[in-house]
Amino acid sequence: MSAYMDFSQSVRSRIDSALQQAIPDTADNPLGAAMRYALAGGGKRIRPLLVFAGFQAVSCKSDHPALDNVACAIEAIHAYSLIHDDLPAMDDDDLRRGQPTCHIAFDEATAILAGDALQTLAFELLAKAPELSDSTRLALIQTLARGAGAQGMVLGQAIDLAAVDQELTLSQLEHMHRCKTGALIDASITMGAWVGAANSESLSVLTEFSRALGLAFQVQDDILDVTSDTQTLGKQQGADQARNKPTYVSLLGLDGARQKAQDLYRQALDCLPHLPGNTQTLRVIAQYIVERKH
Amino acid sequence: MSAYMDFSQSVRSRIDSALQQAIPDTADNPLGAAMRYALAGGGKRIRPLLVFAGFQAVSCKSDHPALDNVACAIEAIHAYSLIHDDLPAMDDDDLRRGQPTCHIAFDEATAILAGDALQTLAFELLAKAPELSDSTRLALIQTLARGAGAQGMVLGQAIDLAAVDQELTLSQLEHMHRCKTGALIDASITMGAWVGAANSESLSVLTEFSRALGLAFQVQDDILDVTSDTQTLGKQQGADQARNKPTYVSLLGLDGARQKAQDLYRQALDCLPHLPGNTQTLRVIAQYIVERKH
Repeated sequence: MSAYMDFSQSVRSRIDSALQQAIPDTADNPLGAAMRYALAGGGKRIRPLLVFAGFQAVSCKSDHPALDNVACAIEAIHAYSLIHDDLPAMDDDDLRRGQPTCHIAFDEATAILAGDALQTLAFELLAKAPELSDSTRLALIQTLARGAGAQGMVLGQAIDLAAVDQELTLSQLEHMHRCKTGALIDASITMGAWVGAANSESLSVLTEFSRALGLAFQVQDDILDVTSDTQTLGKQQGADQARNKPTYVSLLGLDGARQKAQDLYRQALDCLPHLPGNTQTLRVIAQYIVERKH
Repeated sequence: MSAYMDFSQSVRSRIDSALQQAIPDTADNPLGAAMRYALAGGGKRIRPLLVFAGFQAVSCKSDHPALDNVACAIEAIHAYSLIHDDLPAMDDDDLRRGQPTCHIAFDEATAILAGDALQTLAFELLAKAPELSDSTRLALIQTLARGAGAQGMVLGQAIDLAAVDQELTLSQLEHMHRCKTGALIDASITMGAWVGAANSESLSVLTEFSRALGLAFQVQDDILDVTSDTQTLGKQQGADQARNKPTYVSLLGLDGARQKAQDLYRQALDCLPHLPGNTQTLRVIAQYIVERKH
């Protein structure tokens, strides 16, 4: 894990600082503070890491000035979705990453608005990402919009809400997760690859990689929901079980879910030799995702 | 008012149909239906009209294929903001345009998500607006993001929430409204002008026009809140008074507010001779805004 940790640390501190700078000062109104709170440390920053890793997997360079904006944009979308998911009308969670959720630390109205403004910020950051062609900026915006919207993340969340107390088949569960978490993971890697001027062949290999990785991430989440504890998770252990939500563990059993995670991990790794750049970072992120404890 | 009504009718039916087409089918999930519900008829569609009017005020043409996408984008942002504003944690309104609000017709969770997805849709529509240069598409996206986000509409809403039971000065009230409604009205006109390839001089005249018009709109809203009735308004009459919100009427009195609306109307009209295109539509919208009864 140490390769992951090293890379993760350097990207995290870079992104943390870029995020704080991106948020406007809202004077004596709590809106800006709530946006900063939701973005403050503690998150795994997996999506920003995937932006950098997607870039490196297709490029001969190791860095690009636009990556900060792209990484901040995807993290702003992720943070907005967590704020709204945690609301009383949604998952009603008081705890996130071991800290009070945004609507507990502030209030519900401020949390709703902070989420709304974070989504807007994401598109603004992409529109002004430096040293890219206008057509690449637009490709980034379209990729993020498709991943985040009514055919991606938000649809996944809506399907998830409708699934409480419902029996889902494995393929319905997969569809939900492909939307809910997979679409944004896919968008992260694809956006990094756009910055790296990927060709269409590399983009489709990366889509295959990210589909496997996205599901592996979710299967591991479901495993941790039953095997970890609240303190390690930073959120309520057993929350999905308590809500009677269908999970990979409830459908496949714990051993079956662990096998599924391993299969998806292998599937993801098999894609990497077909990419022209440095895929070491994608490899260590994939390893982290199936081995993580929280 | 008949010039306004004729123009309004033709743009409305065009935008209504484009909006319904823009929303993805979410199969058996209520998300798409909630998005459609929030966008369905009954709204005044002032912002789409301003997009068309802003275009005509700077262009020698009367139409452009990108105007539908731009008008739908601004209306999607407006609709998302209304859904979220009406939530119990915000203004807690059950009635909007004489119909149950989105969270009443569906449920709170679906309403939050439908609002989120409508915001995403807006940026997606701009990114793929037809027959524009990529740099114009990006200018539209930046204009909308600035108008809608943490320095525009959402900040205005946050200031408004913080203002309940507070005494505001006239300049604080104006700042709130410049953000809350003015920023999106400004964005509507400016985006239309971008489509019309406006020069910077025209853009700054239009900004002056829209600042006056945006405030006039709000002053008239405050007047109607005390002089109209619930049936005509399509929302609860006296709602601002009941919440003890500061309004132009509470600060200036009813006659003072009426004078203010007239002054702003004059100020807006004085801008029009400085524009190169056909400003008749801007003129009739301005007239409608200060004479409307709901």
